Amino acid sequence: MTLDNFPSKLLENAVSEFAKLPGIGKKTALRLVLHLLKKDVAEVQRFSNSLTQLREGIKHCRICRNISDSDVCNICSNHSRDSRSICVVENIRDVMSIENTQQYRGVYHVLGGIISPMDGIGPSDLEIESLVRRIEQGEANEVIFALSTTMEGDSTNFYLFKKLKNFNIKITTLARGVSIGDELEYTDEITLGRSIVNRLLFEQSLG
Amino acid sequence: MTLDNFPSKLLENAVSEFAKLPGIGKKTALRLVLHLLKKDVAEVQRFSNSLTQLREGIKHCRICRNISDSDVCNICSNHSRDSRSICVVENIRDVMSIENTQQYRGVYHVLGGIISPMDGIGPSDLEIESLVRRIEQGEANEVIFALSTTMEGDSTNFYLFKKLKNFNIKITTLARGVSIGDELEYTDEITLGRSIVNRLLFEQSLG
Repeated sequence: MTLDNFPSKLLENAVSEFAKLPGIGKKTALRLVLHLLKKDVAEVQRFSNSLTQLREGIKHCRICRNISDSDVCNICSNHSRDSRSICVVENIRDVMSIENTQQYRGVYHVLGGIISPMDGIGPSDLEIESLVRRIEQGEANEVIFALSTTMEGDSTNFYLFKKLKNFNIKITTLARGVSIGDELEYTDEITLGRSIVNRLLFEQSLG
Repeated sequence: MTLDNFPSKLLENAVSEFAKLPGIGKKTALRLVLHLLKKDVAEVQRFSNSLTQLREGIKHCRICRNISDSDVCNICSNHSRDSRSICVVENIRDVMSIENTQQYRGVYHVLGGIISPMDGIGPSDLEIESLVRRIEQGEANEVIFALSTTMEGDSTNFYLFKKLKNFNIKITTLARGVSIGDELEYTDEITLGRSIVNRLLFEQSLG
């Protein structure tokens, strides 16, 4: 159905605000708004406050640029973490994903995106200068590129590599290979090809 | 990924509010919240205001119970509509769908749901008494049941029919049949069966 005959201007406003969110069409927006309409005034107020408080109160860690409630985030201020290993990620979701693995004890640097000329995002839109400054100040001895394995991710890796290669640090990237639990039959050729070229000693693969 | 290591309490609050919406999981909620975080404070404020204003300002038409900005909705107050034909629907979305067809000139009655014992929704939770009152006051000469063709819709139709059958009115329901544009092969048996039993004169089918 097309949605252009709203019985209420207030309803129409709320629906069009929701429909601005990514992946939310007008029909979904209407469903969500009608759901909220059934809730208590207090509950809707809580929803609405959580957003304004977030937007007005949120900070970015002045070291790694991750979202934080304080000036320096929990990870950067944790002295049991290895601050000499910096893992470069696109966004906070990637920080959360890597933290979930509980396999990494270093710190992060959040770029806030990847270089994507199609979307008009160039190096100066990202937290690249602040990364270079961290390295200049001798904070790290290893930088790990943990960006998406897409064309944009690869270009960004390449750009960062050029910026960082003259520093006396190790530059690494996430291993590429067959996903654990995947059947070979369903693994794409490029991944499979790379994983045979970069094969591991069997002992290594036991993790 | 599991989502339990938020770097910010404000972020976590906003995500958990979004994740209360139907069909929005934690991952989607996080994506939406991070999108809002990139917007201006004013834009987030507008989003948030649209919801509180809606929740606090919304009315229901005192005649048909549709959502409305005023005491009587646009449809009920429109004198060119036939107020003697009342189309009973589940919710405001159905009003909008039928309005979009531009094939109906009568008025509506919005039940606010359908009878669904599984979800704990009984007749008294719906706008059934107000419908009966409209009929008692002699407002209508036809009531059209336009509920979903599900078991719950059918039960509700049956319940309404029992309530209304002693009034001197015509009680009709939407025609069931093969969707226009559908291939017979893909039409379910029950629909196909009913549509051969209730077959139309060919002239009628030309609409």
